[in-house]
Amino acid sequence: MARRYAFGRAEEATHPDSVKATLSEFISTFIFVFAGEGSVLALDKMYGDTALGASSLVVIALAHALSLFAAVASSMNVSGGHINPAVTFGTLVGGRVSLLRAIYYWIAQLLGAVVASLLLMLTTNGMRPVGFSVASGVGQLQALLMEIIMTFALVYTVYATAIDPKRGSLGTIAPLAIAFIVGANVLVGGPFEGASMNPARAFGPALVGWRWRYHWIYWLGPFVGAAIAGVVYEFGVIQSEAPHHTHHQPLAPEDY
Amino acid sequence: MARRYAFGRAEEATHPDSVKATLSEFISTFIFVFAGEGSVLALDKMYGDTALGASSLVVIALAHALSLFAAVASSMNVSGGHINPAVTFGTLVGGRVSLLRAIYYWIAQLLGAVVASLLLMLTTNGMRPVGFSVASGVGQLQALLMEIIMTFALVYTVYATAIDPKRGSLGTIAPLAIAFIVGANVLVGGPFEGASMNPARAFGPALVGWRWRYHWIYWLGPFVGAAIAGVVYEFGVIQSEAPHHTHHQPLAPEDY
Amino acid sequence: MARRYAFGRAEEATHPDSVKATLSEFISTFIFVFAGEGSVLALDKMYGDTALGASSLVVIALAHALSLFAAVASSMNVSGGHINPAVTFGTLVGGRVSLLRAIYYWIAQLLGAVVASLLLMLTTNGMRPVGFSVASGVGQLQALLMEIIMTFALVYTVYATAIDPKRGSLGTIAPLAIAFIVGANVLVGGPFEGASMNPARAFGPALVGWRWRYHWIYWLGPFVGAAIAGVVYEFGVIQSEAPHHTHHQPLAPEDY
Amino acid sequence: MARRYAFGRAEEATHPDSVKATLSEFISTFIFVFAGEGSVLALDKMYGDTALGASSLVVIALAHALSLFAAVASSMNVSGGHINPAVTFGTLVGGRVSLLRAIYYWIAQLLGAVVASLLLMLTTNGMRPVGFSVASGVGQLQALLMEIIMTFALVYTVYATAIDPKRGSLGTIAPLAIAFIVGANVLVGGPFEGASMNPARAFGPALVGWRWRYHWIYWLGPFVGAAIAGVVYEFGVIQSEAPHHTHHQPLAPEDY
Repeated sequence: MARRYAFGRAEEATHPDSVKATLSEFISTFIFVFAGEGSVLALDKMYGDTALGASSLVVIALAHALSLFAAVASSMNVSGGHINPAVTFGTLVGGRVSLLRAIYYWIAQLLGAVVASLLLMLTTNGMRPVGFSVASGVGQLQALLMEIIMTFALVYTVYATAIDPKRGSLGTIAPLAIAFIVGANVLVGGPFEGASMNPARAFGPALVGWRWRYHWIYWLGPFVGAAIAGVVYEFGVIQSEAPHHTHHQPLAPEDY
Repeated sequence: MARRYAFGRAEEATHPDSVKATLSEFISTFIFVFAGEGSVLALDKMYGDTALGASSLVVIALAHALSLFAAVASSMNVSGGHINPAVTFGTLVGGRVSLLRAIYYWIAQLLGAVVASLLLMLTTNGMRPVGFSVASGVGQLQALLMEIIMTFALVYTVYATAIDPKRGSLGTIAPLAIAFIVGANVLVGGPFEGASMNPARAFGPALVGWRWRYHWIYWLGPFVGAAIAGVVYEFGVIQSEAPHHTHHQPLAPEDY
Repeated sequence: MARRYAFGRAEEATHPDSVKATLSEFISTFIFVFAGEGSVLALDKMYGDTALGASSLVVIALAHALSLFAAVASSMNVSGGHINPAVTFGTLVGGRVSLLRAIYYWIAQLLGAVVASLLLMLTTNGMRPVGFSVASGVGQLQALLMEIIMTFALVYTVYATAIDPKRGSLGTIAPLAIAFIVGANVLVGGPFEGASMNPARAFGPALVGWRWRYHWIYWLGPFVGAAIAGVVYEFGVIQSEAPHHTHHQPLAPEDY
Repeated sequence: MARRYAFGRAEEATHPDSVKATLSEFISTFIFVFAGEGSVLALDKMYGDTALGASSLVVIALAHALSLFAAVASSMNVSGGHINPAVTFGTLVGGRVSLLRAIYYWIAQLLGAVVASLLLMLTTNGMRPVGFSVASGVGQLQALLMEIIMTFALVYTVYATAIDPKRGSLGTIAPLAIAFIVGANVLVGGPFEGASMNPARAFGPALVGWRWRYHWIYWLGPFVGAAIAGVVYEFGVIQSEAPHHTHHQPLAPEDY
């Protein structure tokens, strides 16, 4: 596949668009992690250490979905709206982003998550960020597999709605699809292993709250899931087109 | 009505678009069933066998609606975004899809649901998928009628927003309308008979969890409801147009 | 203002578009009332006569908002997506619909609500539809005023997003705005007087469940609120344009 | 930066578009505050003074998000959809609105919030509006910082989705992004300091309910957060474009 990014690496590093895109990833990840981790602390404030119930699960899922929608929409046209090192990795695997840009994004995403976690601790009178852990009765390999599957669903959605050249007008609702699959998966994975799907979302609270147990799961799982999604969509759907079909229209439901 | 699908059957079977569309149905149904059935298992993990309350109903409805939105949006431009054997049947009845393609879709949808159910059992340390059943105090014919009505609402929405040639810019929000009517109907039918509206959603957990009681209801109901919707919309709304009105514009609210 | 509807009354009555639009209003109102009233019965099934809590309020609000979105989206391009006699009245007051068409719509909407209520009673093993009533501690005039205000908000939103000729691309999200303001208002008015904003939504369950106390509130309130909204928007916003400004573009946020 | 508003100040004051825009801000803020503050009173009606739980937090967050979406969508093409003195301030800081227009908007927003609070007291049989306060265990400076951060997220989203000249088709979903980040932030800040992000939302209930303690926080915080967002987005993202790049297309995800 031809390289789609327009600039050589040296130029890219100082190109205004790179700087803007990196800033955009930093701020959008900050907004997302502040709301996502913040909703967990809000429940802590209300209930203390009590085990969470279904209403709490709804709070956490909505906080993640609603804020991720705003964060992705805000950065979609500037940086592509990744907000997630695993999404960046999936697009890197599919050849949609250069390694240099991926490194910029990763740093910006991790920084945004750390700053959000620090400010949460500051504004909540010192509450310790929680991040993710594996529930009792769930094995680490099971948690890892769940992260792989859920991140696959997320990055597959990213590819289908935001990257596929034939996405058409569905691009308008791409941020919604991305945010909603995260919200849905939180409702599934929450009671088992937290449902991160995003190493930056896990890293910020882990660093500030200094909780590293299980942390590897929330890096390895999302990266593996994202890579699978990138390969499946890039080569199973996009590249399966014969190259001379460039004028082929998207398949509308009434056309088959 | 003229046949709208472009390819003869032999060619269709190996055409790249057929393969891609079938793959897309498989993966999107997998994503939807993993989140939908997974949310039920998540509540099981939190509450065990306790009767579910209103918060749990919200969890289940949101998990279905949010994930279905992502699943339909992801496959809309590739396969038409069915994710549901009943939707495929409704479009078959309306003449919008060939029987061969319908068979491919059905296999892909059922496989996606089975794989999702298997992976749920694997990642939840062996929890047995639940699927659907009829609540005590509700008759089987009542449950059947409820499935018919709710699937009618779903497939009518599919026709109006995703298939109607006059749908115009509403096509952009079709996946949202489809997902939201499923979410609303779960809030209605959940306590009575579970609210499946989708034989694949019912079949995967039934097979993996080996629970077949009432299972016929979740095939017959959706297929009957979908067929009624297909006939009503195709012949009551779309075909009621005189054929020479091809340049007629959609009726905007300010035009009447 | 010039009359915008294109057909004389005799012709309109048998015009295919009138028939289709009336059918569309009937089915969409059926879908909406089945989900809205059905969610109340679902809570009854779970809790019996227990006073509802915040989770139940979320269930009812979501059932109304999600199903109304699908119902409005499904009929937007066919009938204008009213699904509500008060919306039809508001557009009649603003001169956007003929009296004959309004009468057709009203009959279709009321019929759809009655059929939905009958089928709910049938599928729930004879549960008596609930409809709306005024909570203890709330006066009837207060309930009336609340219905007026909330329906004003609804019909104002209808005018701004679905009717205003300058609505531009916001027309795409009109069904969402309409559905969401209803959902929000249910969260407000629910514990006080039920928050109907829609005489058909109130009439179907009242007839089938034979509960007529307070019923006048749910006709007078919505009609008054809708009329105020129609007049305010039609003459305060749309008609305040000088007629020769036909090429004036919608005011984009960056233009002022 | 060149001044983008087209009219001199004397003319602007009586220009029909100014009158319409101000009316639009008044009504949309009324709709939003009626639903937002009304949902708090609805919970009071159900639970009295009992401490709120997670379900109540969902009610409040949804009431704000859903109604704000309708309010912003309704006024987006007329006034720019501010509904919030802090948003108006942020656009003033970025040079997107004249001071005169900002003053009109502020008066309209505050009036809309006061009228909404008065009508809430009238329709709820004299319930005293609640507004916002700082929870025990949270310092005033912490609450102030939280308001700054959350309003920054809101106004950054406004700039990115509704003002950025390169927003493209994302402008269609701008009201959704704006509404959802408010909903997400309510889920975070609610148990700590209420999460206003909007001085009009705080002022109406404070005046009608005569509760002024902490009130300064809900003015200073939002204004500071909005100003930071305006400066960051205007100069960090929009203005970092070289002016001769006027034909530059928005950066699509597949272009880098």
